[in-house]
Amino acid sequence: MKAPALDLDLPGPELTAKLCDIESVSGNEARLTDAIERELGDVAHLFLDRDGDTIIARTDLGRPERVVIAGHLDTVPVAGNLPVRRQGDHIWGRGTVDMKGGVAVALRLAAHVRRPNRDVTYVFYDNEEVESDKNGLGRVAAAHPDWLAGTFAILMEPTSATVEGGCNGTMQLDVTVRGRAAHSARWWVGSNAIHSAGRVLDRLRSYEPAEIEVDGLTYREGLSAVGIRGGIAGNVIPDECVIAINFRFAPSRSEEEAQEHVREVLGGFDVAVTDSAPGSRPGLAHPVVASFAAAVGGEPRAKQGWTDVARFSAVGVPAVNYGPGDPRLAHHDDERVDVAEILACEETLRTWLTTAP
Amino acid sequence: MKAPALDLDLPGPELTAKLCDIESVSGNEARLTDAIERELGDVAHLFLDRDGDTIIARTDLGRPERVVIAGHLDTVPVAGNLPVRRQGDHIWGRGTVDMKGGVAVALRLAAHVRRPNRDVTYVFYDNEEVESDKNGLGRVAAAHPDWLAGTFAILMEPTSATVEGGCNGTMQLDVTVRGRAAHSARWWVGSNAIHSAGRVLDRLRSYEPAEIEVDGLTYREGLSAVGIRGGIAGNVIPDECVIAINFRFAPSRSEEEAQEHVREVLGGFDVAVTDSAPGSRPGLAHPVVASFAAAVGGEPRAKQGWTDVARFSAVGVPAVNYGPGDPRLAHHDDERVDVAEILACEETLRTWLTTAP
Repeated sequence: MKAPALDLDLPGPELTAKLCDIESVSGNEARLTDAIERELGDVAHLFLDRDGDTIIARTDLGRPERVVIAGHLDTVPVAGNLPVRRQGDHIWGRGTVDMKGGVAVALRLAAHVRRPNRDVTYVFYDNEEVESDKNGLGRVAAAHPDWLAGTFAILMEPTSATVEGGCNGTMQLDVTVRGRAAHSARWWVGSNAIHSAGRVLDRLRSYEPAEIEVDGLTYREGLSAVGIRGGIAGNVIPDECVIAINFRFAPSRSEEEAQEHVREVLGGFDVAVTDSAPGSRPGLAHPVVASFAAAVGGEPRAKQGWTDVARFSAVGVPAVNYGPGDPRLAHHDDERVDVAEILACEETLRTWLTTAP
Repeated sequence: MKAPALDLDLPGPELTAKLCDIESVSGNEARLTDAIERELGDVAHLFLDRDGDTIIARTDLGRPERVVIAGHLDTVPVAGNLPVRRQGDHIWGRGTVDMKGGVAVALRLAAHVRRPNRDVTYVFYDNEEVESDKNGLGRVAAAHPDWLAGTFAILMEPTSATVEGGCNGTMQLDVTVRGRAAHSARWWVGSNAIHSAGRVLDRLRSYEPAEIEVDGLTYREGLSAVGIRGGIAGNVIPDECVIAINFRFAPSRSEEEAQEHVREVLGGFDVAVTDSAPGSRPGLAHPVVASFAAAVGGEPRAKQGWTDVARFSAVGVPAVNYGPGDPRLAHHDDERVDVAEILACEETLRTWLTTAP
């Protein structure tokens, strides 16, 4: 199928709408990646690389500093809220906040800022919303670490156009509750795994997540069931029930400490970690981070969600989150972005990349 | 695919094993029905009808009484326990108890009892283990009620070769718990439907099912979760969780009363009935039932599971359960039948059908 056309001369909000209407739920980014590759391939001042559905576009002006500006192309499943609709100051629909508004800003900068004061590496990557081993940024970091080299990274995750430092870690766990199958007419012969799973849900409901201060910013933890399944047939007592749990933990805990904590909370149950990614401390003391934060203005905040800033900080590249959209609306049925934030992010970044450092 | 061969001269236990090894999980009975149709089609004293995967075979000797002997051909899903294995006095595997032991007995009587003292209608039907609207016996009762006419019906469900009277009613319900989706990093913006579903499971766990005496037999009720599902993605707070529940209720409750009871137990939750079948009172006072019970000997018991005796009693035909196999092992991973019970059931029925009434 031919890649759809993208017009990078469109204003950021209109480009955001176009990007959202090219549906790209995780694993299905190819059409969007193809469209971006075609458009950026025509931009004379950029050098392109591609790995799977991830595109890297670089200026090569020999500047002493290099900024990486990155955004993921995938979204969580569409909730019947595409195509997007424009209503007053907002664009509504899946991806408007997380994070095609930020992708639109980065695409416009890539196409139109020909001689930035720092070299720029633009990264548009796949599979951020699923298991971390599929993540396009992680894949490129492992296969081509030189493609991501830089002095500083800006991840265009939604922050309502303020600087958000660091991020919580995230861990996926399965709790498996076992029982004994039997005919449901003689339920007392069996042991009902779904009934027993209620005790796990009781623990989750009564758990009180902590708020933890790290380097001056406050991180809020969370322990949530994100999936449950069990049952064999309508007349069989179920012998197994599996609860999928997501733990969001402050960057002051290591992955090992986070796991230990969940195992303590769910003591007595069969807990298996299926995926995990560490958090990232804010790092605002670094001079280049401080300079960018000053250009944006306002008070930096803690990033609650896990983001790929952790992948940069893990290899020693300071990184912050900065992008249009209220992060509380990410993955929400009412997902919508304020167009003013799209314009503000583009303007701030353009100024920072074109006026003397 | 050609129907597999069945040898109705094999002793009942061997025939049971053959029947079990022709896998026939509900909806997949065609091969077994074809095989039975082929064998009974060769029996000179029987007249055959077929509807879907249900076979009806009748003697037509002009006797004043007609006995219906019925058994279902389908099983619940195979739990890795086929082909069957013979070990000492037992045959192990899916279907041995529920209810191919009884089907083997009925097939042998059909083939070999040429001049019974009562006319006999043998019924081998499909889809008993699934939603009641798929049930082959129900389908035939609606489309060809004359095919099932009789003075008395014996359903060869497992009873450990004793007479079990009546049956509990059964009802399937879905409880839907709703929440509000959000990114799991900002769980406090959403409302977790799976966590809330824990309150439903708490109700089920603390519910104390009644034991209710009806016409001298004691029926044990049960309220069991038989399925649960919920969750959108590993990083999304789930907005819905559905719990499937099975209620087994004493034949003294009507379906309406049963539904009212469950709605009371689950007050405050969104409950929808998806399937329902009434129970059946024991009916042991009826002369023909009493005569058969005397021929079997021992003390009649209450049938805990719902069975199709309810379909016969609903149209005024007294019916009992009588067949080989311990009903507590039905649907169990350890399902196994005692070969002595297969032989005893055949012998009792053959004697009752061939000696003067």
